[in-house]
Amino acid sequence: MVHVLIEENYSSNNRIKTIFDGMNSVLKKKRLSLEVFKSLDEIKDRPRVVILICASLKWTMDAIKALNARGIHPLVFGFQYLDTVYQYSCINLTYTKTTYLLTGYLLSENAGETAVIGYNSDSLPDRLKLAGAKHAAEHYGVPVKVFKNNGDVIACIKDFAENCENVKNVVCLNDTFVIIMRKCCPELLQNKRVCSCNGMKISKYMESPYPTGIISYYKAGVQIAELYWFLMRLDEICSTALTLEMDIVPGKRYSGDFPLIDSSYSQSGVDFYGDKTVAEVERLNQTLLMLDEIDEQILHDIMAGDSYETIADNSHLALNTVKYRVHAMTKNAAVSGRKDLMALIEKYNLII
Amino acid sequence: MVHVLIEENYSSNNRIKTIFDGMNSVLKKKRLSLEVFKSLDEIKDRPRVVILICASLKWTMDAIKALNARGIHPLVFGFQYLDTVYQYSCINLTYTKTTYLLTGYLLSENAGETAVIGYNSDSLPDRLKLAGAKHAAEHYGVPVKVFKNNGDVIACIKDFAENCENVKNVVCLNDTFVIIMRKCCPELLQNKRVCSCNGMKISKYMESPYPTGIISYYKAGVQIAELYWFLMRLDEICSTALTLEMDIVPGKRYSGDFPLIDSSYSQSGVDFYGDKTVAEVERLNQTLLMLDEIDEQILHDIMAGDSYETIADNSHLALNTVKYRVHAMTKNAAVSGRKDLMALIEKYNLII
Repeated sequence: MVHVLIEENYSSNNRIKTIFDGMNSVLKKKRLSLEVFKSLDEIKDRPRVVILICASLKWTMDAIKALNARGIHPLVFGFQYLDTVYQYSCINLTYTKTTYLLTGYLLSENAGETAVIGYNSDSLPDRLKLAGAKHAAEHYGVPVKVFKNNGDVIACIKDFAENCENVKNVVCLNDTFVIIMRKCCPELLQNKRVCSCNGMKISKYMESPYPTGIISYYKAGVQIAELYWFLMRLDEICSTALTLEMDIVPGKRYSGDFPLIDSSYSQSGVDFYGDKTVAEVERLNQTLLMLDEIDEQILHDIMAGDSYETIADNSHLALNTVKYRVHAMTKNAAVSGRKDLMALIEKYNLII
Repeated sequence: MVHVLIEENYSSNNRIKTIFDGMNSVLKKKRLSLEVFKSLDEIKDRPRVVILICASLKWTMDAIKALNARGIHPLVFGFQYLDTVYQYSCINLTYTKTTYLLTGYLLSENAGETAVIGYNSDSLPDRLKLAGAKHAAEHYGVPVKVFKNNGDVIACIKDFAENCENVKNVVCLNDTFVIIMRKCCPELLQNKRVCSCNGMKISKYMESPYPTGIISYYKAGVQIAELYWFLMRLDEICSTALTLEMDIVPGKRYSGDFPLIDSSYSQSGVDFYGDKTVAEVERLNQTLLMLDEIDEQILHDIMAGDSYETIADNSHLALNTVKYRVHAMTKNAAVSGRKDLMALIEKYNLII
């Protein structure tokens, strides 16, 4: 029996039915059936894993805490993700990629200052979405203005209204922002291209749909069930995240292709290991990693000033073995000989 | 046969042997054996999944790209992670938690200004580590100064040297920074407590070990093999990340417990769904989500001004069925009746 705990408010919507259809397509092959609960108190036995389907941060946090306290591993599917990933398993969405493609789509026809609306820095999805929008803007060489959501949507939109004179493109991190702006202040969006990273059902009913990323709830259900099955057969359950690819819907208003290739961003990262100083430390570390106990003793003796002969005698090794092992160490450290190796170890005050 | 591709530089170190031991402990039960390659060109057939063991960003990016181009899914274990998670599977580490605990450990005995050294905003692990350090500092109410690493470790340390007069605690995001600072400018660390989020083997040989987080490479191997097995039996491979719990080593110099409980952070997030304006949109969206085709037709007719009787006639439904369905809609939208529901739909200019 598969235990599912659903946040009450969401238990009767169509999405949930679709998620269950996806789950059942996997679970019936394994002759498992779903049991749905609306409160943790209803779960009397102690399953290893409970699936949470949820939307609000508070409910989710409380449920995860309560499950962890009972030694039950939570598998979370919700509309909001947290950054304490190690306390639960979850389904992730391709937020960075989706926002990158959507932003690039806007920019391809209308390159210019881009506003990102509704950024909440506490939210992991929002950080991922912002990264995508920024990468796309960078690609087109246009500036990005970020309008933060500090828990008050109207204040965020007001801030945008006061600072949007040069904005040509609007990336809403959440559908709610487009919907409310279209309702409260449609003039703000005139002559601007808009996209939203998360499509709500509402957008289907809007006059001019905008490009958005949507979630296949059936696929989500399949993934939840696969992940459940994986976790249940681990000896020791570890937190696991499966990535669900979001679909992109271009909207009616715009034409043109998605111009950016999804693999082209994220290559600009600083290559930490390319730094010269780091390279020396890394090499030294590699050398130390490769030492076995005998090597370590030899290195200790060398640092104490012993000759190869003395070391060979003391450690009952052939002279050539000692020489060979030291040679390997100097090679690993990319130094020219024993003295340079000693100098390197002394340089970092290591006690061997 | 399990295909493993190893970055040349790292192929002969002790860690790799330990990783393989962990992998084999799982794979031998499944009668699978490892085949190790050092270049992609050596892999002639087309496996579904190739395991990458790597360290440098460039090598990893190139290998992922080449594998994706050949339709092979990469499973990555390395010391550096990227944010294009959907292009590969990987083992994640508990960076946020580890840094949170380490920073809290420093602060518990010496609360005061805290420096975070070596932050590279392009790096996902660095962002996660910074989040942990900030949460701990917030808990103790102390300020955080972030010293960025833009690819030049010495410049970063110099920046720290010039701006550290009030710093009491130093959180190094990478062992390299402690090692180099102890070597080049030990006076900078005097009277300061230090920790590092990633322990290198080097730290074992240092005079006074500092608290650090370390990785069990055997466990990493077990997880890699479990993840490999999971991916191989999926009909459609989706990117998956397993979380590996880092161990914390307190170091010799400090006493005291780890004062912070690891589940206490990350609760301070803005609850987006608590916003009143959002709540209205959410409710409306929920209502729309719950419509089936018949409901949608009824709602359409209501918006067109039809009476219940007309709708019942046109749609061949009993009058009570129509009433019941509309009642359910108003209940879902949390409005008092049909007129309020119509007003709400008009408010957002929806076409139904």
